[in-house]
Amino acid sequence: MISDKIKNEIINIVGEACWLDRPEHLVCYAYDAFLEEALPEAVVFPKTTREVSGVMKIASAQQIPVTARGAGTSVCGAPVPVRGGIVLCFSKMDKILEINTRDRYAVVQPGVINADLQKALAPSGFFYPPDPGSMTISTIGGNIAQNAGGPRCLKYGVTVDYILGLEIVLASGKIVRFGSKNVKDVTGYRLSSLICGSEGTLGLVTEAILKVVPQPEAVKTLMITFKDLDYTAKSVSDIIGSGILPAAMELMDQFTLNAIEDSAGLGLDREARGTLLIEIDGIKEACEKEAIKIIEKARANHAVSIREADSPEDRAELWTARRSAYGVFAKLAPDIVSEDITVPVSQVPEMIRRIVTITDHYGLRVGVLAHAGDGNMHPLIPADRNNKEEWANVIQAYDEIFAAAVELGGTLSGEHGIGLAKTEYLPLVMNQDSMDFMKTVKAAVDPDGILNPGKFV
Amino acid sequence: MISDKIKNEIINIVGEACWLDRPEHLVCYAYDAFLEEALPEAVVFPKTTREVSGVMKIASAQQIPVTARGAGTSVCGAPVPVRGGIVLCFSKMDKILEINTRDRYAVVQPGVINADLQKALAPSGFFYPPDPGSMTISTIGGNIAQNAGGPRCLKYGVTVDYILGLEIVLASGKIVRFGSKNVKDVTGYRLSSLICGSEGTLGLVTEAILKVVPQPEAVKTLMITFKDLDYTAKSVSDIIGSGILPAAMELMDQFTLNAIEDSAGLGLDREARGTLLIEIDGIKEACEKEAIKIIEKARANHAVSIREADSPEDRAELWTARRSAYGVFAKLAPDIVSEDITVPVSQVPEMIRRIVTITDHYGLRVGVLAHAGDGNMHPLIPADRNNKEEWANVIQAYDEIFAAAVELGGTLSGEHGIGLAKTEYLPLVMNQDSMDFMKTVKAAVDPDGILNPGKFV
Repeated sequence: MISDKIKNEIINIVGEACWLDRPEHLVCYAYDAFLEEALPEAVVFPKTTREVSGVMKIASAQQIPVTARGAGTSVCGAPVPVRGGIVLCFSKMDKILEINTRDRYAVVQPGVINADLQKALAPSGFFYPPDPGSMTISTIGGNIAQNAGGPRCLKYGVTVDYILGLEIVLASGKIVRFGSKNVKDVTGYRLSSLICGSEGTLGLVTEAILKVVPQPEAVKTLMITFKDLDYTAKSVSDIIGSGILPAAMELMDQFTLNAIEDSAGLGLDREARGTLLIEIDGIKEACEKEAIKIIEKARANHAVSIREADSPEDRAELWTARRSAYGVFAKLAPDIVSEDITVPVSQVPEMIRRIVTITDHYGLRVGVLAHAGDGNMHPLIPADRNNKEEWANVIQAYDEIFAAAVELGGTLSGEHGIGLAKTEYLPLVMNQDSMDFMKTVKAAVDPDGILNPGKFV
Repeated sequence: MISDKIKNEIINIVGEACWLDRPEHLVCYAYDAFLEEALPEAVVFPKTTREVSGVMKIASAQQIPVTARGAGTSVCGAPVPVRGGIVLCFSKMDKILEINTRDRYAVVQPGVINADLQKALAPSGFFYPPDPGSMTISTIGGNIAQNAGGPRCLKYGVTVDYILGLEIVLASGKIVRFGSKNVKDVTGYRLSSLICGSEGTLGLVTEAILKVVPQPEAVKTLMITFKDLDYTAKSVSDIIGSGILPAAMELMDQFTLNAIEDSAGLGLDREARGTLLIEIDGIKEACEKEAIKIIEKARANHAVSIREADSPEDRAELWTARRSAYGVFAKLAPDIVSEDITVPVSQVPEMIRRIVTITDHYGLRVGVLAHAGDGNMHPLIPADRNNKEEWANVIQAYDEIFAAAVELGGTLSGEHGIGLAKTEYLPLVMNQDSMDFMKTVKAAVDPDGILNPGKFV
């Protein structure tokens, strides 16, 4: 319990307007896009690093759990305050502090929305590559906490690849900084890479220096359909094997495409067992040449239809199907369980077959979306949480899907993280000593265990 | 002191042939390419992860310092066993365990020579991008320990960007694994990124899963000379600002070029104040177009001469000057002090001016080589260590050069690391709490401080 005395101490730091503890407010900070909920005792909105430090000093002295929160778009329960305490919401630390395209970096506070950074960079012809599905609403701080990916991470890499430096407030309230504005920096331990993806369990990011890159001269989008899923997946590895690294290579299976077509009537090919949405970017002539090669590889794999788009409008049309998938699935059942596994690219067709076999066995429907170029797959199961039998089947099916992914050389999560969702599955990919090693690091850095307690470590 | 009993226990694990303790052997493992030396008590050559684990269990129980060593090409003293004990040399763990270009990874032991991995990858049209100057002799384990860079890291990134997973033996002898064969993996803490660049102070890499990429279709090299250093540096930022990211952009100053010309007689332009060696790669048409743009930008900056090379032979000729720089400098004086700082790209010309002003002040000669595209600069001072006055001036000059780099927003090391060379300078770029945080992590992971003791943490 947070006493009135402690409440007043915190309010003295952040101001009354930045403290919430009425139940109708707290309920808004009890959940993310995962299934579990838990109420915090208070929500605090710091405006500066000093305020974060001040709050952490109190929390540390009082052993109050502190769970960081950006926009709450996480899909693994990472910001759900399962041990109560304080939710530290970074939405008021939303300033872009510096953009320097000559030296290719941007300095931002953690509450900056990913898309707002993109907007600010656009006039100078630069962009920040990580593009999680949530990018129009999710924050850079949340992206860092979860090491967010996205479609174009195939070519450009994930969030951790764009962190040049971080300012971090530790559990003790101490303020540390690692990295710099320099693209190359091997000064001391790479602790900013450790903080990235640690889901708020090791420290709180209060400022980030991010690498930004020039926008490509040209972008081209291709939508290619196949009669057969193996040919779809083989096209993916043939294209990459030929030396082309597209910005994005998205795969949709037949169930997904039909669900979209049922809902949106875009004139998609209902017979296609597999659809690839491929985006290439770079020098115009290179895009042209790569498009020709991609089409060759697709034809050699018996592509049924090929659509090409160069203009932003035509490209947006092709992306509509992919982007609408989650919304469409949401209409199929009261709940939708979207998962996130990764397998080596060559195992994508086998993994899809196993997903279908497993879900068939439990009488469940399933759609598969994949960032196919890097083997990152999202099986989506529409179901009803109130139907206990069905729900037990969903859980059982996912148990088997995770085991299958690991058996094929894959892993538990490509971009969504562990959070509450997958803690119990960690032993599938880590031995006890490796898990203990994580705990050793956690215990050293946060000895009282107040940072996002009750999660994977 | 390692007792005979302990010696026998270790020999029981690794075999007699893998233990050295005669002074004439030990002296070979006392140094790297930095200036300081220290004798170990024994050198041990493990052949398997189990053997490494076994040795570490003994070292841990007996609190014997253990310093890992690859090929000893480090230039910061990282593998120098300043507290004696055991040097664990990984040269016998030199197997390439798996190459899978379809899924774009290679699995190697730490003693594999960087160039040997390249040779093994070449027939399948792939390569491993990090290319430190030492790549023909340095090991992957050493590259990981130092987070090695190299010329083409401008476009491709440094070692840490290519680590998918690591097997690590901890100080306790426990064996842990982080990461996987999957390009996208957010399962648990990113501890392999923390180990990378930690210079053997946190754990010993016994196996690495590395990302590999397809070789580009075409490569083109340009050598461009300028009358003025500012125009040279401005060309660098103009080229990058135009959206081109060359594989490499190497800058040489007039002193360096003349030293090379004195020694090698390559017909270089002695009047050029700045020379850029630029390499671009990718789709052939893109290279052609980028070369035209680069030449435009260079001409706009009053380039004096421009040479282009497409064939491997012609390209090698242009690279000869750059590659011979260290050898040439070695002839100028008994010692050569090569340093490694990084500044934001826009600050490269100002940093070169400051380096020249500082060294002039101390009556020293200096040549500057720079991976200019990422602001990573190597000032080289030829001097004589036995000339005490000159040597004191070298030390003083570098103190001022480091301070100037930090003042310009730069940092202490872009790719060489901290080791023994720069520990005392760390407070220039880190506050006490940040250094303490590194020590906290170190103390948790290696509580007896036996892994590479006496270094930066």
